[in-house]
Amino acid sequence: MKIESVDFFYLSMPEVMDIGDGSQDALLVRIRAGGLEGWGECEASPLTSIASYVCPMSHSACKPLKYSVEGRNINSAEDIKNISNAVHENSFDLLQSDHTLSGIDIALWDILGKKLNEPVYKLLGYKKSYPKLPYASQLFGNEPEETFRKAAKAKADGFKAVKFGWGPFGKKGLANDIAHLLAAREGVGPDAYLMIDAGTAWNNNLALAQERLEHLKKVNSYWLEEPFSNMFLDSYKALSESAPKTDLAAGEGCNNFIQAKLMIQYAGLRFIQIDAGRIGGITIAKQVADLAQQNNITYVNHTFTSHLALSASLQSYAGIEKDIIGEYPVELKSLAQDITLTKIVPDTDGYIHVPEKPGLGIVVDTLALKKYLVDVEIKVNGKQIYYTPDL
Amino acid sequence: MKIESVDFFYLSMPEVMDIGDGSQDALLVRIRAGGLEGWGECEASPLTSIASYVCPMSHSACKPLKYSVEGRNINSAEDIKNISNAVHENSFDLLQSDHTLSGIDIALWDILGKKLNEPVYKLLGYKKSYPKLPYASQLFGNEPEETFRKAAKAKADGFKAVKFGWGPFGKKGLANDIAHLLAAREGVGPDAYLMIDAGTAWNNNLALAQERLEHLKKVNSYWLEEPFSNMFLDSYKALSESAPKTDLAAGEGCNNFIQAKLMIQYAGLRFIQIDAGRIGGITIAKQVADLAQQNNITYVNHTFTSHLALSASLQSYAGIEKDIIGEYPVELKSLAQDITLTKIVPDTDGYIHVPEKPGLGIVVDTLALKKYLVDVEIKVNGKQIYYTPDL
Repeated sequence: MKIESVDFFYLSMPEVMDIGDGSQDALLVRIRAGGLEGWGECEASPLTSIASYVCPMSHSACKPLKYSVEGRNINSAEDIKNISNAVHENSFDLLQSDHTLSGIDIALWDILGKKLNEPVYKLLGYKKSYPKLPYASQLFGNEPEETFRKAAKAKADGFKAVKFGWGPFGKKGLANDIAHLLAAREGVGPDAYLMIDAGTAWNNNLALAQERLEHLKKVNSYWLEEPFSNMFLDSYKALSESAPKTDLAAGEGCNNFIQAKLMIQYAGLRFIQIDAGRIGGITIAKQVADLAQQNNITYVNHTFTSHLALSASLQSYAGIEKDIIGEYPVELKSLAQDITLTKIVPDTDGYIHVPEKPGLGIVVDTLALKKYLVDVEIKVNGKQIYYTPDL
Repeated sequence: MKIESVDFFYLSMPEVMDIGDGSQDALLVRIRAGGLEGWGECEASPLTSIASYVCPMSHSACKPLKYSVEGRNINSAEDIKNISNAVHENSFDLLQSDHTLSGIDIALWDILGKKLNEPVYKLLGYKKSYPKLPYASQLFGNEPEETFRKAAKAKADGFKAVKFGWGPFGKKGLANDIAHLLAAREGVGPDAYLMIDAGTAWNNNLALAQERLEHLKKVNSYWLEEPFSNMFLDSYKALSESAPKTDLAAGEGCNNFIQAKLMIQYAGLRFIQIDAGRIGGITIAKQVADLAQQNNITYVNHTFTSHLALSASLQSYAGIEKDIIGEYPVELKSLAQDITLTKIVPDTDGYIHVPEKPGLGIVVDTLALKKYLVDVEIKVNGKQIYYTPDL
């Protein structure tokens, strides 16, 4: 079947706050082909990504993404890989391209699954999918008391794993961090997995990260996530070898395979966290999952937006039985909740499951989206090259 | 002085061809403050970069670049570094941001130099600048005969160093590559430096690169540039250790400091090539130049556009006496020629010099640009958030 249309929908909450909550806006991609519809989501700046899709060509290695996508045939997994390769070849000097490709690639897998009547993970070569233990992923409270309340709520909601990240952590001194760590552990109880996400707060400062290690140990944190900016391999490695030993997690900042490969090879990570909406889609995410297995590193999805994005990010490691942990956002803005009619919810044992329906197995609620739709119009030399299409 | 305005100008040739010539369009940045004007150039997709400057905020780490720039004070080098840091902190989830920052940072150095009445390289800490031997940088011909003619012309024009890249090289089989290599050497004569740029043609295929080494040796090539895509450290390293020994050059694809650092540390390079218009501007380029010196790697500017971009890319290593080679584009489209009234031309000994006038020492020809100006209008929810300003 031939790709007939690739449409972008920029959605936003009425007010976007200056906080580390990526669910405040969204960029959905809808691809139509052969009477079917596939949906994807870019975890990226919507306007910038749209511009990278429609911009005029600058030179042979800086083409708009549409050049490598529109009019192509999609009948097999190989066809999607060919589109991914074409984007990398035709747009490698267009920096935004990996983020934009991500949503396109996800939508292509969704539509191919619908055509072949298979869930995406089966098209990726997995025989079956295994349940994942979701960790309730949320921001630290502004004060330790708020962190405690959030932690206690996650416990009451039945979560056996909880992650806190961003907010004030790492930014207001050691004493404040310790207070938040203790509050988090007290709230989730002694038995839950507790993950801590520094959100790159220390940029590249090894000492600042090292002085938190003993306090992370005291609250028995399961991992420390993103102490440093993406790709600061030496600092990650040095921290991974520091005492007391703390398992490190990172990777959400990777926007292509080679970055993830280097993080796996050189950063001393125990967990690699990949967002299919950033790394170039499910195609690249699966390549990273394969590499992580070969290197005995645990793969974890990164997801802080809708359940469409959640399904997309789970596919790449759905069939890896031993990689059991999954990120599960629990304080989504209404926008991110309203994107899908289908929800991925924990079962009675507290585990989540990749949808078994064709494609991503997620029904997008186009009616509900209308109130969040941000109209975008781009004109170049008076000619309209983009206008928000009809939902 | 306070930044009063930051304006972007998208310029383009009437026709942009599907060739590896980055001089077919341009994105200039004009910053006004304290009655002065500074100019910079992004080596990037113009429309996408403009979008990243004006887009609405997505969350705390995905803010438009204007958030970190507009209204700030610029009185010292430290102020520029603070803006650079602010962009990295506020926009690290906005992938395009490094390319957009590049032109802004360059314009900030230009205006600061004008205010302090110093060339930029002195503001960077260099006491004096040293002449660079320019290599005539051009695309391979479509046929070996055309490569020969281009090479002979560069020799006739007095160039002692010539680089060929992109075009058919690496894409049409070994025999064709050999023919182009021989034609290039024949054209430039036995004594000239001859550099060969594969333009990432082999992506990550070590064997394809290795089988060219003996032929590069036969024509006495000074370096092999970008055999692989950016950051494929292992392949670069393996090639650097392959026989016959060939010096490797790369780095133009780096869009931040850490990528350049990893290329310097792990890729086995002899030359690191940095484009100030991509890596985040002169601020980051200078950090890379310092690191290259510490690691005994030769720094080379990457420039394939205007003489504004050329001056910007030369500043970061102007004061490093031993790093003598400089990229010098010789087949610029009229657009890239017309951007500046000032030209950096080889002296009678064949060397080029960084301008000694304040800032970048380059006068932009705003009148000449009008015919290349591409009007861009971006509306979000009916509100105009960008319109091409007056030149």
